[in-house]
Amino acid sequence: MKIYVVGIGPGSLDHMTPYAKAAIEKSDVVVGYTVYVELVREMTRGKEVLSTPMKKEVDRCKIALDAALENKTVAFVCSGDAGVYGMAGIMIQVAKDHPEVEIEVVPGITAACSGAALLGAPLIHDFSIISLSDLLTPWDLIMKRVKLAAEADMSIVLYNPKSKKRRDYIDKAVDAILEFRSPDTPSGYVKMIGREGEMTKICKLTDLKDNDDIDMFTTVFIGNSTTEIINGRIVTPRGYKNV
Amino acid sequence: MKIYVVGIGPGSLDHMTPYAKAAIEKSDVVVGYTVYVELVREMTRGKEVLSTPMKKEVDRCKIALDAALENKTVAFVCSGDAGVYGMAGIMIQVAKDHPEVEIEVVPGITAACSGAALLGAPLIHDFSIISLSDLLTPWDLIMKRVKLAAEADMSIVLYNPKSKKRRDYIDKAVDAILEFRSPDTPSGYVKMIGREGEMTKICKLTDLKDNDDIDMFTTVFIGNSTTEIINGRIVTPRGYKNV
Repeated sequence: MKIYVVGIGPGSLDHMTPYAKAAIEKSDVVVGYTVYVELVREMTRGKEVLSTPMKKEVDRCKIALDAALENKTVAFVCSGDAGVYGMAGIMIQVAKDHPEVEIEVVPGITAACSGAALLGAPLIHDFSIISLSDLLTPWDLIMKRVKLAAEADMSIVLYNPKSKKRRDYIDKAVDAILEFRSPDTPSGYVKMIGREGEMTKICKLTDLKDNDDIDMFTTVFIGNSTTEIINGRIVTPRGYKNV
Repeated sequence: MKIYVVGIGPGSLDHMTPYAKAAIEKSDVVVGYTVYVELVREMTRGKEVLSTPMKKEVDRCKIALDAALENKTVAFVCSGDAGVYGMAGIMIQVAKDHPEVEIEVVPGITAACSGAALLGAPLIHDFSIISLSDLLTPWDLIMKRVKLAAEADMSIVLYNPKSKKRRDYIDKAVDAILEFRSPDTPSGYVKMIGREGEMTKICKLTDLKDNDDIDMFTTVFIGNSTTEIINGRIVTPRGYKNV
């Protein structure tokens, strides 16, 4: 009667922790969005696999809960970290009336960390992670957060920067950041981290606008006022004094 | 002539990725702060190990660079993620005049993610990571960031919340956050994540003040205005609409 909510990391099994792997191996049932279950296919042999399409997050949690209530051990897989825009929270919410079901959150490497590593070191100092998806959050609040993070001179990571229905959200976010930061601020983006088609790009803040590379599988990074480019890498110094 | 800057995760090898392990195993030399080198001791057998005490970060980078320039492969280990208050940035800075030395940043699980997993799911939605250490950053800027993150209603993670010389910094940060957030805001902290003496505590925002548990090995988590406690876990909902 246990559910592991497992962050499998960016995609490549090389970046998934032994603890996450063991949690899947110990489980009777593996639940998750089809694409993520596919990424851990080699660990699911001989197990019951219950995958569901995107946007059915609550249904997926109920499937995991039902399996746990049948006294099975369940691995509920999600990409990146289970606790950063992941399924850990909603799983605990859905299981609210069943405190007898143990829920263990297994951390994984989130796109902010795996993407930053590919770009150099943009997140060495204070930073904010903000999702531009307005499916569950009012757009005004998202923009307020972007502006305040820019005013705070923190590095900024944008998840879900664009989708078919909101192609100009990243442009609006960049415009808001430009009120506080130079157009030349070292920035970059990473697509399909750890998967086939991975792409990494370092650019200026303004280059993030009207940029057809950026899509829903992209994570965007924006430096702070001290961030520089060194040998083709983005580097945010540790502090505001000389190192 | 390659340096891997390796994030070894929270401490337990179970939470270190196979890629990070392989990077250490492929290396001729392992460089790092004594405590972190000790954590990966079983991987360093037969290798040259160069450890240095705390606060000698630039020296440590120079040692790693010198070894790489002797055509050795170097693993430069740091705790958590190499790119979040880690050594990735300063290593690239120190090697600035040696573009021939390849530097690969290997991500690991940072305390925000490993700590959040132990507390439940406090970071499911937008959040800021801020260090309260003023060794390299002016205190005014740190406080500005704390206030703006609070005003933005983002969850907040505080690294380096206290040291012997700055025992009241966390208290001042909490006071600043209280201008925007309820005293009852679900909060918590985790000490010595993944190591001996690990401790996890869930409390209210005001309980973080005058709190002798909190020290330099503690990571502090503060929820946003929608964060709740469910079955003894901190949960920040995915959005501001009903799930």
